[in-house]
Amino acid sequence: MNLDALIRKVPDFPKPGIMFYDITSLFMNPEALDFISKMMLEAFEKTKIDAVISIESRGFILGGIFAKERKLPLVLARKQGKLPCETIGESYDLEYGQATLEIHKADISPGKRYVVVDDLIATGGTVRAVATMIEKSDAEVAGVFAIISLPFLRYAEKIGKYKTIVLREYHGESPSPQANAK
Amino acid sequence: MNLDALIRKVPDFPKPGIMFYDITSLFMNPEALDFISKMMLEAFEKTKIDAVISIESRGFILGGIFAKERKLPLVLARKQGKLPCETIGESYDLEYGQATLEIHKADISPGKRYVVVDDLIATGGTVRAVATMIEKSDAEVAGVFAIISLPFLRYAEKIGKYKTIVLREYHGESPSPQANAK
Repeated sequence: MNLDALIRKVPDFPKPGIMFYDITSLFMNPEALDFISKMMLEAFEKTKIDAVISIESRGFILGGIFAKERKLPLVLARKQGKLPCETIGESYDLEYGQATLEIHKADISPGKRYVVVDDLIATGGTVRAVATMIEKSDAEVAGVFAIISLPFLRYAEKIGKYKTIVLREYHGESPSPQANAK
Repeated sequence: MNLDALIRKVPDFPKPGIMFYDITSLFMNPEALDFISKMMLEAFEKTKIDAVISIESRGFILGGIFAKERKLPLVLARKQGKLPCETIGESYDLEYGQATLEIHKADISPGKRYVVVDDLIATGGTVRAVATMIEKSDAEVAGVFAIISLPFLRYAEKIGKYKTIVLREYHGESPSPQANAK
């Protein structure tokens, strides 16, 4: 299936010089959602996974489907201040300043294996933050999934060692990540 | 299935006097996610629906599952400024001030029927905002789904006329909605 044809490219969003890869056009297409889900599940079919960690907010869409289909617990990595119980947190760089993702401390157990699900990997900052929380909890990253990645932002340097499945890569010149538009 | 036993109650979050009904504990339980999905899909099995609208951000989890299982387009209702193309927007009241939800204008078509999916209905402000966008687009609200509702916040006065499916109601005294903690 030609996902590229269904991914809308919006130049200069959220600011001049940034090409935004919009996955809302993908989700408007039921065949695409079905295809993406199938590719995602097949890629990890033989991977031992104890739970899914999905990254707020677009990562929740595929994270929910992954957890339901594999009958796994679904852990939410949320923006700071949203989770009501004791959390662990990890900051990552935005273009200007920093942001923090949090996970309920009780939702990550030592020795367990977690797959990290998001929609798009730009600089890899958010995935790196989640992977660091997993490893600081003495748990393991079983793999990483995203629909789109932007290798020119060199995310592999941050998250290179994990099994990383991406359905569509875009190669561009933009020096700016779009991660801050999440 | 006893969902109540799996819904964590956190007093005084996000501020004193508010009881927060935490659904992350539900999603940690694969049987609960399966049960909730099944109840949701069965409740609308005979309802004619053209697309699912899920509300950022926890609504994305069940919205994605609904869309995938019914093979329907998935529309995202997002917080202001997140969607890159032409949007329609509708504001709703928070405890202090207002917030706005937006939908891509092209994603709602006149005459089509939309089901609105969220995790929790408190005052009904967010569901009302989405329903208003649907109706201003000359489309129809096919129904509303949430896991939890808080009838004492009188959301029915705002969204009463639609088919509304809720799996668990909580009756309390708190005068403050928790919707602002979304």
